Amino acid sequence: MERYDLLIKSAFLPDRGGVDIGIKDGKIARIEDHIEAEANYTIHANGKLALPSFANMHTHVPMSLLRGIGADLPLMDWLQKVIWPLEGEFVSPEFVRAGTELGILEMIRSGTTLFMDMYFFEEVVGEVSKEAGIRAGLGFGILDFPTKVAKTPDEYIKRAREFAKSLKGEELVFPVICPHAPYTCSPDTLRKARELAEELDLYLHIHVAETKGEVERIKEEYGNTPVRHLESIGFLSDKVLCAHMVWLDEEEIDIVRERGVKVAHCPESNLKLASGIAPIPEYVRRGVHVTLGTDGPASNDNLDMLEELSTMAKLHKGANLDAKAMDARTALKIATENGFSAVGIKAGRIEEGYEADLILVSTENPHLQPLYDPIAQVVYSARSSDIDTVICRGKVLMEKGEVKTLDEERILHEAKRWGERISSFLDRLRSQG
Amino acid sequence: MERYDLLIKSAFLPDRGGVDIGIKDGKIARIEDHIEAEANYTIHANGKLALPSFANMHTHVPMSLLRGIGADLPLMDWLQKVIWPLEGEFVSPEFVRAGTELGILEMIRSGTTLFMDMYFFEEVVGEVSKEAGIRAGLGFGILDFPTKVAKTPDEYIKRAREFAKSLKGEELVFPVICPHAPYTCSPDTLRKARELAEELDLYLHIHVAETKGEVERIKEEYGNTPVRHLESIGFLSDKVLCAHMVWLDEEEIDIVRERGVKVAHCPESNLKLASGIAPIPEYVRRGVHVTLGTDGPASNDNLDMLEELSTMAKLHKGANLDAKAMDARTALKIATENGFSAVGIKAGRIEEGYEADLILVSTENPHLQPLYDPIAQVVYSARSSDIDTVICRGKVLMEKGEVKTLDEERILHEAKRWGERISSFLDRLRSQG
Repeated sequence: MERYDLLIKSAFLPDRGGVDIGIKDGKIARIEDHIEAEANYTIHANGKLALPSFANMHTHVPMSLLRGIGADLPLMDWLQKVIWPLEGEFVSPEFVRAGTELGILEMIRSGTTLFMDMYFFEEVVGEVSKEAGIRAGLGFGILDFPTKVAKTPDEYIKRAREFAKSLKGEELVFPVICPHAPYTCSPDTLRKARELAEELDLYLHIHVAETKGEVERIKEEYGNTPVRHLESIGFLSDKVLCAHMVWLDEEEIDIVRERGVKVAHCPESNLKLASGIAPIPEYVRRGVHVTLGTDGPASNDNLDMLEELSTMAKLHKGANLDAKAMDARTALKIATENGFSAVGIKAGRIEEGYEADLILVSTENPHLQPLYDPIAQVVYSARSSDIDTVICRGKVLMEKGEVKTLDEERILHEAKRWGERISSFLDRLRSQG
Repeated sequence: MERYDLLIKSAFLPDRGGVDIGIKDGKIARIEDHIEAEANYTIHANGKLALPSFANMHTHVPMSLLRGIGADLPLMDWLQKVIWPLEGEFVSPEFVRAGTELGILEMIRSGTTLFMDMYFFEEVVGEVSKEAGIRAGLGFGILDFPTKVAKTPDEYIKRAREFAKSLKGEELVFPVICPHAPYTCSPDTLRKARELAEELDLYLHIHVAETKGEVERIKEEYGNTPVRHLESIGFLSDKVLCAHMVWLDEEEIDIVRERGVKVAHCPESNLKLASGIAPIPEYVRRGVHVTLGTDGPASNDNLDMLEELSTMAKLHKGANLDAKAMDARTALKIATENGFSAVGIKAGRIEEGYEADLILVSTENPHLQPLYDPIAQVVYSARSSDIDTVICRGKVLMEKGEVKTLDEERILHEAKRWGERISSFLDRLRSQG
């Protein structure tokens, strides 16, 4: 008799109905109406919906310790007056560990099994990710100005090479080269980052065209819009993940499609920080590879991909006055399969041969009954608290609402302690005017 | 020693800190740091946030049985091809009872204690509301064409008068006169509805300027935009609640403000049905009384006011490219106090002398920690599952996540049975092409 590492009994697949799912070596090995087999662990789904887990393709997870600070400020004020002074004071490996634990706890609770992160001390983010059993594409922001990571562009590049080396052979965690943005990196820094990524065969992750102000600034400095600027220095390729991409013109969309660039759409951050509404339905229509991200939990203010997905699906219909601008299935694919495939992971579908990254969703709640169209109803009506079980690469990270790989009580306790220290500093900052 | 009907110990008020709240005769009688008193019932809030409960100012609650059907269709297709045929087949007092029970269950779970409803068989909605202990402003849609309620405008008006009489003396439930919309009611019908409301001293509730198409249609038929049309026939006053109000021009906004008309903004429905984005920050700036609603659970697809509120606060910043277009406190006020006060109820603030309509929100979840700015973090990051306790007019409707006034198990069971019957009909409808 065949034997699975994990067997899920009586799950419900939206386009098929009730099934059992056998998982082996981190992959979905078999899907049948009934599987009679032995398993190291068995989950009784009792008819819960099985859906792919989410891929959060742009975030700054350790910033969960700064969530809710400076609400209702535009991006540049929020960064310069609040976030950067706070980061200058507090960011350390200990801060990053506590913030990452809190953020990953929230991500597991809300069904995410891959996140693409850009922050400081990413080696710590990597350690916590491995402990938690979640996939992570990690890189610290490369900048032209000094931070706690490095002093000069050359030193950032050197550190990035060392960081990449340190993650060699890891299964869940992989290094990514993260030049911060065209407005914080010179063409020379961008070129060096690109060369390093090519040499080591890594993905690049960068912020691009987030605000109108950024477009104006890049135009003034380089005589070109951000995407054209990146194209002119040979930066773009199908291994580049560009976050935001709110302000592109027609020709820039063509460039992005031709180069195979991946877009990480962050609708709630773009709304909340008043950056704008990216023309995502147009990207999708023209064949651009679109993925979804929450952005950092200090700008969103959470890491809730189900909320992000729901906002995306509704927003683009309303903004385009077209109810067909984005249907529920497209939205779900953007939040799942498109994310994983953007970084070469065969996950995001519940099919044999795919990685076993999936969630079980309870529909036994008044807001999901009656259940006529499970995908549409999850997209438009579910909330993260309906997510019951989360599996990453065949490993159960949460079951029946209980996170298995992290100590929730200790993490919340430490988050509160950081919160107290940060609050005191904010009080001092305010009293100084 | 004084005695309260209900005493809440150790709640946390965002602008004040820890307090006890004494409730008597449905009102907040006293708020102090510590209250030593007897009480018929005591709730230990253990530091949970106390916030006003929500007022859902535009919905069609019984449609919860139709949620998720016809996703991704624009308003008119959705109504004509899907919803109206279904309603023709199914709507009955039994359907309305089951749908209302399901909807109110969801509303209590998500912190709503007042809803303004427009549907058929509203006497049944009233019965269920009283059983559930929730406030409701109710009226059936008055139309120029026949439905299960009445055949002619005069008959609708007669029925509305009878319905109003039947609710006389009720504490929680009050009648509202609901001409459906300027495109479904002739000027004569609108005038008669207005006269009846005036005679009986009732509020009017109507759909106005929801889509561009409606504006075109009203212009063609009456040579005027919807708000001007309503103004020209003397319909508007400070006792008129207009849902949607997406497509108003500058002068129409002035008319609305001058008349004291109340707006029920439904951002998620307007997005999902591709109706558009109402210029709410402009209304607020110009002193229009703005309230919030979910619209029916078949268009949204839920009755979640916290989600609606969060979407509203983010949406208008992004759509206006202005992070100050709507701050968190304004958003919360629109979703609470503005709703209650629009229909003359002194609730929506946690202050002595106000009606005891409030919720307790748990912040012991990773997505709400650390907690720096409770109001902003509830608006941008909380989800309805964080709502622990719901109190309406001093009565506990939910405590520690358990709904006290409704039989959740029976209601879900019946909703599923209705779902099966409706699914079979949809299958037949589809097989007929």
